[in-house]
Amino acid sequence: MAQHITAVLLSGGESTRFWPLKEKNALPLVGKSFLAWHYEQLLALKLTNVILVTNAGNEAFLKSIPVPAGLKVSYVMQTGLGQGQAVLAFESNIGAEPILILNASDYYSDAFLKSFIQHVKTSGQEMILGAVRVNRYFPGGYLKTNAKGNIEEIVEKPQLGKEPSDVVRIVADYFPSATMLVEAVKKYGSDPVNGYETAINKLIQSGVVCKAEITPLQTWKYLKYPWGVLSLVDEFFSHMSGQQIDKSVVIKEHVVIEGLVVIEEGVKIFEGTKIVGPVYIGKNTIIGNNNIIRHSHIGAYVVTGFSTDITRSYIGDNCWFHTNYIGDSVIGNNVSMGSGTVCANLRLDDGEISSLVKGEKIDTGKNKLGAMVGDNVRIGVNTSIMPGIKIGQNSFIGAGIVVESDVEDGKFMFLKNGTLTTVNNTKQAAVSRDEFRKTL
Amino acid sequence: MAQHITAVLLSGGESTRFWPLKEKNALPLVGKSFLAWHYEQLLALKLTNVILVTNAGNEAFLKSIPVPAGLKVSYVMQTGLGQGQAVLAFESNIGAEPILILNASDYYSDAFLKSFIQHVKTSGQEMILGAVRVNRYFPGGYLKTNAKGNIEEIVEKPQLGKEPSDVVRIVADYFPSATMLVEAVKKYGSDPVNGYETAINKLIQSGVVCKAEITPLQTWKYLKYPWGVLSLVDEFFSHMSGQQIDKSVVIKEHVVIEGLVVIEEGVKIFEGTKIVGPVYIGKNTIIGNNNIIRHSHIGAYVVTGFSTDITRSYIGDNCWFHTNYIGDSVIGNNVSMGSGTVCANLRLDDGEISSLVKGEKIDTGKNKLGAMVGDNVRIGVNTSIMPGIKIGQNSFIGAGIVVESDVEDGKFMFLKNGTLTTVNNTKQAAVSRDEFRKTL
Amino acid sequence: MAQHITAVLLSGGESTRFWPLKEKNALPLVGKSFLAWHYEQLLALKLTNVILVTNAGNEAFLKSIPVPAGLKVSYVMQTGLGQGQAVLAFESNIGAEPILILNASDYYSDAFLKSFIQHVKTSGQEMILGAVRVNRYFPGGYLKTNAKGNIEEIVEKPQLGKEPSDVVRIVADYFPSATMLVEAVKKYGSDPVNGYETAINKLIQSGVVCKAEITPLQTWKYLKYPWGVLSLVDEFFSHMSGQQIDKSVVIKEHVVIEGLVVIEEGVKIFEGTKIVGPVYIGKNTIIGNNNIIRHSHIGAYVVTGFSTDITRSYIGDNCWFHTNYIGDSVIGNNVSMGSGTVCANLRLDDGEISSLVKGEKIDTGKNKLGAMVGDNVRIGVNTSIMPGIKIGQNSFIGAGIVVESDVEDGKFMFLKNGTLTTVNNTKQAAVSRDEFRKTL
Repeated sequence: MAQHITAVLLSGGESTRFWPLKEKNALPLVGKSFLAWHYEQLLALKLTNVILVTNAGNEAFLKSIPVPAGLKVSYVMQTGLGQGQAVLAFESNIGAEPILILNASDYYSDAFLKSFIQHVKTSGQEMILGAVRVNRYFPGGYLKTNAKGNIEEIVEKPQLGKEPSDVVRIVADYFPSATMLVEAVKKYGSDPVNGYETAINKLIQSGVVCKAEITPLQTWKYLKYPWGVLSLVDEFFSHMSGQQIDKSVVIKEHVVIEGLVVIEEGVKIFEGTKIVGPVYIGKNTIIGNNNIIRHSHIGAYVVTGFSTDITRSYIGDNCWFHTNYIGDSVIGNNVSMGSGTVCANLRLDDGEISSLVKGEKIDTGKNKLGAMVGDNVRIGVNTSIMPGIKIGQNSFIGAGIVVESDVEDGKFMFLKNGTLTTVNNTKQAAVSRDEFRKTL
Repeated sequence: MAQHITAVLLSGGESTRFWPLKEKNALPLVGKSFLAWHYEQLLALKLTNVILVTNAGNEAFLKSIPVPAGLKVSYVMQTGLGQGQAVLAFESNIGAEPILILNASDYYSDAFLKSFIQHVKTSGQEMILGAVRVNRYFPGGYLKTNAKGNIEEIVEKPQLGKEPSDVVRIVADYFPSATMLVEAVKKYGSDPVNGYETAINKLIQSGVVCKAEITPLQTWKYLKYPWGVLSLVDEFFSHMSGQQIDKSVVIKEHVVIEGLVVIEEGVKIFEGTKIVGPVYIGKNTIIGNNNIIRHSHIGAYVVTGFSTDITRSYIGDNCWFHTNYIGDSVIGNNVSMGSGTVCANLRLDDGEISSLVKGEKIDTGKNKLGAMVGDNVRIGVNTSIMPGIKIGQNSFIGAGIVVESDVEDGKFMFLKNGTLTTVNNTKQAAVSRDEFRKTL
Repeated sequence: MAQHITAVLLSGGESTRFWPLKEKNALPLVGKSFLAWHYEQLLALKLTNVILVTNAGNEAFLKSIPVPAGLKVSYVMQTGLGQGQAVLAFESNIGAEPILILNASDYYSDAFLKSFIQHVKTSGQEMILGAVRVNRYFPGGYLKTNAKGNIEEIVEKPQLGKEPSDVVRIVADYFPSATMLVEAVKKYGSDPVNGYETAINKLIQSGVVCKAEITPLQTWKYLKYPWGVLSLVDEFFSHMSGQQIDKSVVIKEHVVIEGLVVIEEGVKIFEGTKIVGPVYIGKNTIIGNNNIIRHSHIGAYVVTGFSTDITRSYIGDNCWFHTNYIGDSVIGNNVSMGSGTVCANLRLDDGEISSLVKGEKIDTGKNKLGAMVGDNVRIGVNTSIMPGIKIGQNSFIGAGIVVESDVEDGKFMFLKNGTLTTVNNTKQAAVSRDEFRKTL
């Protein structure tokens, strides 16, 4: 590998299963967007030439994320669906150089990517596919390997029991020449579902050697469902060390801070509160009196109010709480909850919590899971959100309600004389509550 | 002004727009009734001769309020409505001496009244009318002034855009001779709505010189609507300085007291609580564990219970709370709330909060306003009171209810098998809970 | 009394009025079962020969309770109802020795039993019946005494106003010879309701001298209704002295512990919490942050969660709470409540709280009484349980409900689109939450 590898970050797909959250790469994570984390990782790996594949919906936003010095990012917009379309999108930006294709909504450990690049350095004109070893059936592309250890075929979603191995492909694909891939995709890759994999299989059949680089399942995280944010946050938490508390942070009396924490500038923590790490608290956030904050990510400009409990949760920016229990929940940006509102995180029988995704009941694998709430949602006082429930962005939920099924985007749900009603929401959540912050 | 001025305090009107609170002058304010504050102010101004105009409903109560030494108060009862009727009520108590008529439900700053009396001293046989300069339309009596600066006419409720000035009359009327006023009212003042103003206009037309004494709008407060109590309290708070904590007050560990406070004798403040001034706490009140009390007036013999948040609110005497959020609210005497009950103080869209007054929707000018609750109300656990809602005295509200419209006096609202029902309340709120206090 | 007295503990009756709690003698009380307390008391009184009368439902459990060294316990199973049947059950285990029959679900003060045994020592061949002096009508057996101070007759449930005395028999019956009692019961005692008392009356008529041993009403406690647990706990509390805190107990910062407490090994008490004795906390219980625990019995392996208030209540083992108010309540084993759930303990009119027992409305004599909850109950978030309500074991109660009438065993009550529904519960409460404890 004499030539410099171009890294391709795929961010052109849809995120419908990520609802009620939207742009995965926009997610504020420990002080920056998820995309910014990718940029830093690539820079540290000296993969300084990057193509970012966007779509019509997210291009403007993704272009607004600052690119660190030393990194060169070209933006290309994907029009159709599928990884093959992504390849066609960057065709004109690339020649015969080697490329490494990564998924911008996946998290790859530093160790994995380092090992992958080491693998590339010692290989010749081979393709290398990143993969994980699974311990139960996974609906993905299994790698069938021959006696020499070379990949013979990607077998997409085999029947349960017919898997050719326990190794499943992730999106981390190295090609010694971009042209090789582009040509194959043009020829065989028109199917939006499996075209890309078909193209790789054809390349293998044509004699290109293909190897796997396998990473432990635990170190690969992917943002498919909204609750995936929780394990992604844990991944970032696992990199924390010690207590990094900005010198501007105001900590009042009778506050206890334990464990790993990052607390950014301008944060205030009021009396009687306990912080139990790992905890991240973003800029200018106000943690009120008599709170408990455990194992959670709290964004910037948040106000947690009085006697709030946030446990094992992700909170975006600009949220307002007041005497809430938020357990095992994922809360977007600019969300507010009234006093006494609770995100229940446990079924009465302690059983596994399922969630409806595009009409399909998905087992989440969790027996503790709270609410997932989109941006700009307002929730009144004394409302109860059942475990695994999702609330769409720009929706308003009134007081004293038991929310027992998902609420679409832009709805207004309220009790009127004890009867529960849902209509389209004609009001807008206030963008700024700066005036209220002054009185705190 | 050689002669001693007689001060007339008008308290003979109705207070229907003040519902669910009742007698304005009975309001406990920073340790005494509002009327007692008037008495002290008049005494300090050396206006030692006072006529208090009462009505049939409040005379007994008003007479029971102690008169400070040095002040002489005559009580006269008004029978009809309107300021003219008030004048006729005190006709026989007064001769040709100068009088200053003030409204007992208005708050006048010391500075304004001092300036007013100074004005009187330098004037001759002029009438002087107190007034404020407004910055938006106010449905009152505008003062039309001539080139010499004399008042030509009181123009009652001109059309919007037709105001003769930006100066609106308040009730602070000086007459060099009471007889002059009485005669004019007898002749021209029979109309209960505008008769009094007509009489003044006639006096001006007859050649009496009339001047205005103008006070900044901010220093004049009037108790028209119940939420007016909040700004009245702020006025009293603005006179506080330092921390006046009676030596008998018991303050347990891990309590933080910040800002201006007055804490009266016998108060106990339990562990983990924060007090953020300006705060007034009346005699023998018990502030429970893990409370936050901010910018609020708490009466005497109150028990706030565990983990209660009282913010920017007025609380009367003998109230009981327990794990409540009371924000921007006005709570009368002998009110109790069960654990988890919340006075919501913010609309989901952060918009201006309106309130129904005598069937009319009134914009309160506030985007933070909670509940207004009359005397002897009982509210169960986990109930939610919507912003701007009023609950009439002697009403009971059950558990788990969303109170979304005003509740009349003497009602019992409850959920029965999930159905909301309101009937007449046949029960009485207990007057004393002394026995319960023993167990605290 | 040369002969050693055999003590008979009656535990063969039904406990239907004790519902939703079940086996009275199984009740964990300050670290051991109620039966174990009886054993210790008898041992201390040197009554080392014990017959325990069981029934088919509780025999296995009662046999599992360890017998202290020095005590010999024989178990006999009663088949029919009534105290006469209990006597017949132990006929073959006993001869002509003296016996003292005690009720295993009653609490007798040490002083009373000491005095009773002293009485026995100075008596000859007399029967001695324990009794209390009542100050209002009690539906029991009144003792009619003759001029010599001997008991002439037990008058069962006389009409109000026709009571022969103010002395009512309790179950604490001494017979100088067991044979004497057995023969009388065989002859006259077949009626399950009053047969036993008839047999005693016949013995008196036949010339056996019968005396009373009277104890103050306050020192005799009986577990008839579930709320009786509260006064029984108070009795045990009255024996506490000082603060017995096991050396293994972890007490975090800003914790205040006042008054009499027993805190067992392995307990952790988190920051910002106050404990106000008398309080018992069983082994390995976790008292969370910002709690207040007052005058309560908390069993073993309980987790109280964040910002919970437990006041004047009894909590069994393995319960989980989170931001609850539990006042004047009796909570069985393995019960959990979601965040924001409240056991209301006071009527809106502060009136006496009644409770339905076997279809009959019983005045509890209390104006503060919360919920009574059976074993293995799960309650969701933000639910409100009205004063005096009982919830049967193995029932699930959903979120946001106002529970206003008793819930039978094994029911599932939930809100569906705002409508309250109750069905049979097909799910089981999880027995162990050890995994959750790890994350605390």
